[in-house]
Amino acid sequence: MQRYLIQTNGPGLYAFTSQVDVTGTGLLTLFVQHTSCSLVIQENADPEVQVDLQNFFARLVPPTTDPAMSYLTHTYEGPDDMPAHIKAALLPTHLSIPVQNGKLMLGTWQGLYLFEHRVAPHTRSVIGHMS
Amino acid sequence: MQRYLIQTNGPGLYAFTSQVDVTGTGLLTLFVQHTSCSLVIQENADPEVQVDLQNFFARLVPPTTDPAMSYLTHTYEGPDDMPAHIKAALLPTHLSIPVQNGKLMLGTWQGLYLFEHRVAPHTRSVIGHMS
Amino acid sequence: MQRYLIQTNGPGLYAFTSQVDVTGTGLLTLFVQHTSCSLVIQENADPEVQVDLQNFFARLVPPTTDPAMSYLTHTYEGPDDMPAHIKAALLPTHLSIPVQNGKLMLGTWQGLYLFEHRVAPHTRSVIGHMS
Repeated sequence: MQRYLIQTNGPGLYAFTSQVDVTGTGLLTLFVQHTSCSLVIQENADPEVQVDLQNFFARLVPPTTDPAMSYLTHTYEGPDDMPAHIKAALLPTHLSIPVQNGKLMLGTWQGLYLFEHRVAPHTRSVIGHMS
Repeated sequence: MQRYLIQTNGPGLYAFTSQVDVTGTGLLTLFVQHTSCSLVIQENADPEVQVDLQNFFARLVPPTTDPAMSYLTHTYEGPDDMPAHIKAALLPTHLSIPVQNGKLMLGTWQGLYLFEHRVAPHTRSVIGHMS
Repeated sequence: MQRYLIQTNGPGLYAFTSQVDVTGTGLLTLFVQHTSCSLVIQENADPEVQVDLQNFFARLVPPTTDPAMSYLTHTYEGPDDMPAHIKAALLPTHLSIPVQNGKLMLGTWQGLYLFEHRVAPHTRSVIGHMS
C-alpha cells in the first residue's frame, strides 16, 4: 500500500497521474480519506475542461450563503463546507484502474485528478492499493 | 464473501460502519444489490450533514408528482420510484476501501452509509468481498 | 484481462450484461477508457427507466448552445462535448461486482449499461479485470 499526499490551494482539479507509480499487473484502487474532496478521471488535454467542470459543480451546489441553499443547516464550518460534502457524495471517493505490466490502462485522454471542494489550502491523503 | 442486511424506514442515510467485520490486509468492496438505494462514504461527526445531504438530493430529484418532473414516464411504481433510480445513478452502487491488519483505512471523519431513496420500508442487501 | 467493444449510436443506455463472460469467484471490475461516456448499473426491467434517466441528465446538463450553459468555455468540440465530460464526472467510470462460481452477484433488477453522452456514433472500449 502507498500513500500519496496532494497539496491543494482552493477549489479545482489537481492532476496527479504522474505521481502514481505501479508495477506488475492487476488492479490499482485509489482511495481518498476525506469527505470534502473527490477523485475523478477526466480529460487531460484541454485545461478548459477542468475549469468548466469546477464551474458546473460550483453552480449545482453553491455556498450556503446563496439564498438557494438556505435550507442547509450544517453551516458552522463555513459556507463551503456542506457544499463540499454534497460534491463529495456526487463525485467518486475511489477509483479502480486495471494495470498491465506496470502501466495504468487509461484511455488516451484520461488523466487522474483530485477535485478539491474547499477554499482553504489542504493536504489530501490518497491511499493506493494493488490487488 | 459476506452479506449485510440493512433495514430502512424511509429516505435518508443509515450508518453501517460498525456492522462491517474485516480481517487481514487487502481491499474490501461493498456492493448493494438494488437500483433504488446507494452506498456513500460521508462525514460521521455531525448528523446535520446527513439531513442536509438527503434534502439536497430530494430537491435535485423531486417526486414525479412535482410539475418540474412531468417529463418522467416511469410513474406506475409510485412517485418516489423513478427519482430513486436517478439518485441511484448519481450516487455509488459500490465502495472499495483498503484494509490493513483488519482495519478499514477510512479517514478520521469518514463513515459508511446506506442511502435509502424509497419511502416504504425495505430490507437492503449489501455484499462484502475481500481481495 | 478482457476488452469489450460497445458500438453506440447517440445518447442513451446500452445494455451489455450478456456480453460479460466471467468464470470462478472473485471481483470483476469494468473500466471504460473514455471521458464522454459512463458505466451504470440500473433497472433492467422497464425500458422507460432508461429513457427517463437519459432525459434527466439531458436537462441537468444541457448542450452548450443552451443559454443556461453560456458560462462553459470548452465548446470547440461541439455543443455535446463539455456536457458529456460533466456527465462522465457525475456517473461512474468503473464498476466492481462480486462474482461467485462464474455468476455476477447482481440483484434481480440490476443490469449493466454503457451510458453514451455523445451524439455521434462511437466504438467504446471497456476493460474487464478479475481479481
